[in-house]
Amino acid sequence: MSNDPLVVFTPSGKRGRFPVGTPVLTAARQLGVDLDSVCGGRGICSKCQITPGYGEFSKHGVTVHADALSAWNAVEARYDEKRGLKPGRRLGCQAQILRDVVIDVPPESQVHKQVVRKAASARVIEMDPATKLYFVEVEEPDMHEPTGDMERLARALRREWDIPEIRADLSLLAKLQPVLRKGRFQVTVALHRDHAGDPAQVLEIWPGLHEGGLYGLAIDLGSTTIAAHLTDLETGEVKASSGIMNPQIRFGEDLMSRVSYAMMNPGGNKEMTAAVRDAINTLAAEIAKEAAIDAALIVETVIVCNPVMHHLLLGIDPVELGQAPFALALSSSLALDARQLDLAAINPRARVYILPCVAGHVGADCAAVALSEEPGKSEDLVLIIDVGTNAEILLGDKSRVLACSSPTGPAFEGAQISSGQRAAPGAIEAIRIDPVTKEPRFRVIGCELWSDEAGFAEATEASGITGICGSGIIEAVAELRMAGLLDESGLLGSAEATGTARMIPEGRTHAYLIHDGSATGGPVITVTQGDIRAIQLAKSALYAGARLLMDERGVDNVDRVVLAGAFGAHISPLHAMVLGMIPDVPLERVTSAGNAAGTGARIALCNVAARREIERVVGEITKVETAIEPRFQEHFVAANAIPHKTDPFAELAKIVTLPSPNFNTHGDGSDGGRRKRRRG
Amino acid sequence: MSNDPLVVFTPSGKRGRFPVGTPVLTAARQLGVDLDSVCGGRGICSKCQITPGYGEFSKHGVTVHADALSAWNAVEARYDEKRGLKPGRRLGCQAQILRDVVIDVPPESQVHKQVVRKAASARVIEMDPATKLYFVEVEEPDMHEPTGDMERLARALRREWDIPEIRADLSLLAKLQPVLRKGRFQVTVALHRDHAGDPAQVLEIWPGLHEGGLYGLAIDLGSTTIAAHLTDLETGEVKASSGIMNPQIRFGEDLMSRVSYAMMNPGGNKEMTAAVRDAINTLAAEIAKEAAIDAALIVETVIVCNPVMHHLLLGIDPVELGQAPFALALSSSLALDARQLDLAAINPRARVYILPCVAGHVGADCAAVALSEEPGKSEDLVLIIDVGTNAEILLGDKSRVLACSSPTGPAFEGAQISSGQRAAPGAIEAIRIDPVTKEPRFRVIGCELWSDEAGFAEATEASGITGICGSGIIEAVAELRMAGLLDESGLLGSAEATGTARMIPEGRTHAYLIHDGSATGGPVITVTQGDIRAIQLAKSALYAGARLLMDERGVDNVDRVVLAGAFGAHISPLHAMVLGMIPDVPLERVTSAGNAAGTGARIALCNVAARREIERVVGEITKVETAIEPRFQEHFVAANAIPHKTDPFAELAKIVTLPSPNFNTHGDGSDGGRRKRRRG
Repeated sequence: MSNDPLVVFTPSGKRGRFPVGTPVLTAARQLGVDLDSVCGGRGICSKCQITPGYGEFSKHGVTVHADALSAWNAVEARYDEKRGLKPGRRLGCQAQILRDVVIDVPPESQVHKQVVRKAASARVIEMDPATKLYFVEVEEPDMHEPTGDMERLARALRREWDIPEIRADLSLLAKLQPVLRKGRFQVTVALHRDHAGDPAQVLEIWPGLHEGGLYGLAIDLGSTTIAAHLTDLETGEVKASSGIMNPQIRFGEDLMSRVSYAMMNPGGNKEMTAAVRDAINTLAAEIAKEAAIDAALIVETVIVCNPVMHHLLLGIDPVELGQAPFALALSSSLALDARQLDLAAINPRARVYILPCVAGHVGADCAAVALSEEPGKSEDLVLIIDVGTNAEILLGDKSRVLACSSPTGPAFEGAQISSGQRAAPGAIEAIRIDPVTKEPRFRVIGCELWSDEAGFAEATEASGITGICGSGIIEAVAELRMAGLLDESGLLGSAEATGTARMIPEGRTHAYLIHDGSATGGPVITVTQGDIRAIQLAKSALYAGARLLMDERGVDNVDRVVLAGAFGAHISPLHAMVLGMIPDVPLERVTSAGNAAGTGARIALCNVAARREIERVVGEITKVETAIEPRFQEHFVAANAIPHKTDPFAELAKIVTLPSPNFNTHGDGSDGGRRKRRRG
Repeated sequence: MSNDPLVVFTPSGKRGRFPVGTPVLTAARQLGVDLDSVCGGRGICSKCQITPGYGEFSKHGVTVHADALSAWNAVEARYDEKRGLKPGRRLGCQAQILRDVVIDVPPESQVHKQVVRKAASARVIEMDPATKLYFVEVEEPDMHEPTGDMERLARALRREWDIPEIRADLSLLAKLQPVLRKGRFQVTVALHRDHAGDPAQVLEIWPGLHEGGLYGLAIDLGSTTIAAHLTDLETGEVKASSGIMNPQIRFGEDLMSRVSYAMMNPGGNKEMTAAVRDAINTLAAEIAKEAAIDAALIVETVIVCNPVMHHLLLGIDPVELGQAPFALALSSSLALDARQLDLAAINPRARVYILPCVAGHVGADCAAVALSEEPGKSEDLVLIIDVGTNAEILLGDKSRVLACSSPTGPAFEGAQISSGQRAAPGAIEAIRIDPVTKEPRFRVIGCELWSDEAGFAEATEASGITGICGSGIIEAVAELRMAGLLDESGLLGSAEATGTARMIPEGRTHAYLIHDGSATGGPVITVTQGDIRAIQLAKSALYAGARLLMDERGVDNVDRVVLAGAFGAHISPLHAMVLGMIPDVPLERVTSAGNAAGTGARIALCNVAARREIERVVGEITKVETAIEPRFQEHFVAANAIPHKTDPFAELAKIVTLPSPNFNTHGDGSDGGRRKRRRG
């Protein structure tokens, strides 16, 4: 044995001796080296490409000669001719080991590819999706040994891939025989296995080697927006991201009004279920079209959502969620056939995984944030706020994680605001008020220029200046306070008292005029006293939820704050802190996680073990119910004021926020839901 | 411990000592005595009724005093008042053990009730269906310990019934919350578990204690007829049996013509799939109505059928079954949701079990016959023939079982016969020809009288005498041979040669006139030379199949013959033997199994272990393919003649068959599909 050639694989460093003539793929498999292969070593899938190194490898104590591997063979030549092999590459199933050799496995040849999320937290996702491709050669039928084609497929998968058991839907069985014959009994199957012990489900079958890819959808189903990431299940790459409005809005802006709709209208919950399922179908079809892939190649979907959306998606009347004790019908994770949710736009046998809910008011979206941000692995105490119509709040570190939800209402999303609108082109998303002149300057979605910069009018001609969205109103209120136009109690001053004509009368109160477009038929955009009150209520609810968790934890301060949510990603931390939305921490310790819930969904899509992890983690989270906690009310009332701690913040504001109010980057590689400028 | 009272349970004989005050149900459970309880000992389901014995029990060495059990209590009194307890009965959960006692568990209180099949083989079915009822008390939701209602139901089932894991369909989840609240968190669930290790599926949930019963359908899906037995899943009792024609007949009378239809007409297989699923829905709705039960209480269905029907039912194009090597898409058993087969007439969450197929031409119906007749447990060599448009033939004993199918064609079912018709009122089903006078006497379906008995004309006025069905044509051909009107080669004699005017010219051949109804506008019923040829082909095919198995087994004789099939049950063994349909055995060794395939389905419905048994048995059966076996052709040709071994059979005929040509009783407790006089 010791005379056998030595093989060292990089980057793993795994090494062993193998008889002369052993294919590199065989050696890799025996050593447990992560080298991909779909065709099982037949030289047709090209997944097992490797790069032999030649020369001295003192680190490994190996000298590699030019004849270390067998010569380039006909299979490799044919492949190279047809598809092209990168210089220096060999097919691992064809190249045989002749002498000592060092073999590098390039990242794209690894099964468990590592996808680095380009975010502050730099979380690495190891590719290990529930659905994978397998190429097999099935025995042809034999009259004298009668077995079904399905049984022979199962036998081939057992023999070639160690898959102990398979199952298939009737619709797959219906296509099994023609596909087997078309492929001359060589086929590629997409096998899905959510739990390790389950039989593998045959989701799709193709004649011969399937090279068209395999895709999954990560869906963040929000009350206002439904966002999806179309993800390549082999590489983890996001092929397209898209979002549409949740059509349930017509039944109620916030969750409780949808619960009311279900209570008041017989069959109302069924209407809402049909609406959201339709919308997901539309979104799936759109995103597939955009990425130019066949929607039937989407074989998996992971969905995260709040409890009311969860029940409405599943066809469960959410009425119990509208009253104490806020009992969920089901809190565990769910693995379903897409068909059960009427998701006809994707593969008819696609599977859906829905993350577990944390509690009656704390949903699978919160679980997804926990999966993405991992508060339970944090060394310091982190407060994570997923801002939306309902805010999900997590507080914790390695020792313990607490969670609650807080009904902030839709004000942060621009609803119930006099000039409010959803984030869309034309909406004011950032604003600065000069503390001296009290004059505003602002930016609108769809234009990178500030309103006082040259070219702004031309650039915004198409969209117009139509209203003010969530991040805009937060900045406006904070800027009004910093400019001395708003007092601590939240009262706007008069033109006389403040010395600016921007303060205009509004009934018995006052409003601040941001933009008057009436000369060109556009709207008059103001911040009214009513708007201030709505934002005060919303920010108090958010703050009270965070404080309640801090009380439970017995702390007065947190080490850092993460703002999450498609919308949370666009909030200026400085303004949020001025407003009193979040507890005080050093400004540089406030980061944005982008759409952390969507990222959590994508992690569960790419790595099946992450599903088990979040199921375990959710069980360990301490749930705090805000609705029945007297201290929540106390904190809520106490948080109503806008204290404005002056100097240090004003200084910081100049340094940090003026260059770019959208300093938050969408670190997950996607654009954080901004692509279509729809946010929610 | 030895001072504790001794309890002896009968009929099991299990005994043990228990502390004074132990409820009888508790003692029974600890001893593993088979005593039923749905409510878990709460005194509401009354399933645990027992009868204490008093006095001397020398067999058990026990003297039982009047105060051996605690006094009749309020729970028992209330139950007795509301529902009535039989004299001497107590509720096992209420009666406590005070002194030595002998407790009898009456059959209706046993969980694993034994259902004796009233047939020759007297097979006992032990009730252990896949779906059972469980009453549970679920914890109410608690805001401070938020879990879903489903999770609390699972916990209750784990605690009270040792059910480790449950699953439920979305439609069940949708009703879970209202039912739990309606039942004040006391509910009855129907749990389905096909394989021991699987999570139990919640098929249905009712508030409080459900006392409306639970039902299953055993369906024998034949090429011509679909028969169903509605079975009580608690007692095993058949509540109703019914049958309807298979509407696929319009696409082709026999299996191969349906395969051709699928090949020739794009979408033809889908048409046939829809037709058969519709028919099963119609049948299920009818049978539930007839038994006056809510069809939603049907939670299980077991289906047996031949391979072509199997594929068409499942929505699989049967084209591969029409050509060598006759590859099945799937041969294993299948467990499905009824919804996958569009069976909307029964419970929306009902489960379907389909027995495994044996081979490309030998279906789940053959497997069901094997389950019912158990050739693999036979001490002597048994030949089982399931007669139909396609005959399934089994030969075997303890050492080995062989199976094949034989394409007999529809002649045995009255099709392709000049005066032939399906078994229905008015059809001649039995006939005798006097060997001396050559005159016929016959009986028609719907009338118990023979045609030469007083009152026959009146009794048949309504139905008329419309034609001749399968069993009638077999008897007619055999009787013609025995009366000397038909020679060994199958040629009918002329009036001159036979000396009877009943022989009438029919082109260049002759026909035998059974009945001339033309005077009253009815048909002229004859047996033509063409009919004789059709029957010769069919019987030769049947015989050749049986002989082929005997060759494989290396025998020239079998010990006994079992005729099965809805139609087989009506064949006179004597006539079948005269005709040469079956090998010669002593006449008393030919029995009828009635609709053995239907019985097999019923066994699989009542006992989940029987499913595993037949899955194992099917794997051990040696399959013989008739279509490619040259000896099949040889036997087929050789079997064409009708030899008529004279004397002993003629004698036997007088003794055995004249009193009642319908000597076969439908021993399975059903009426063998005759209820509606539809057979085939």
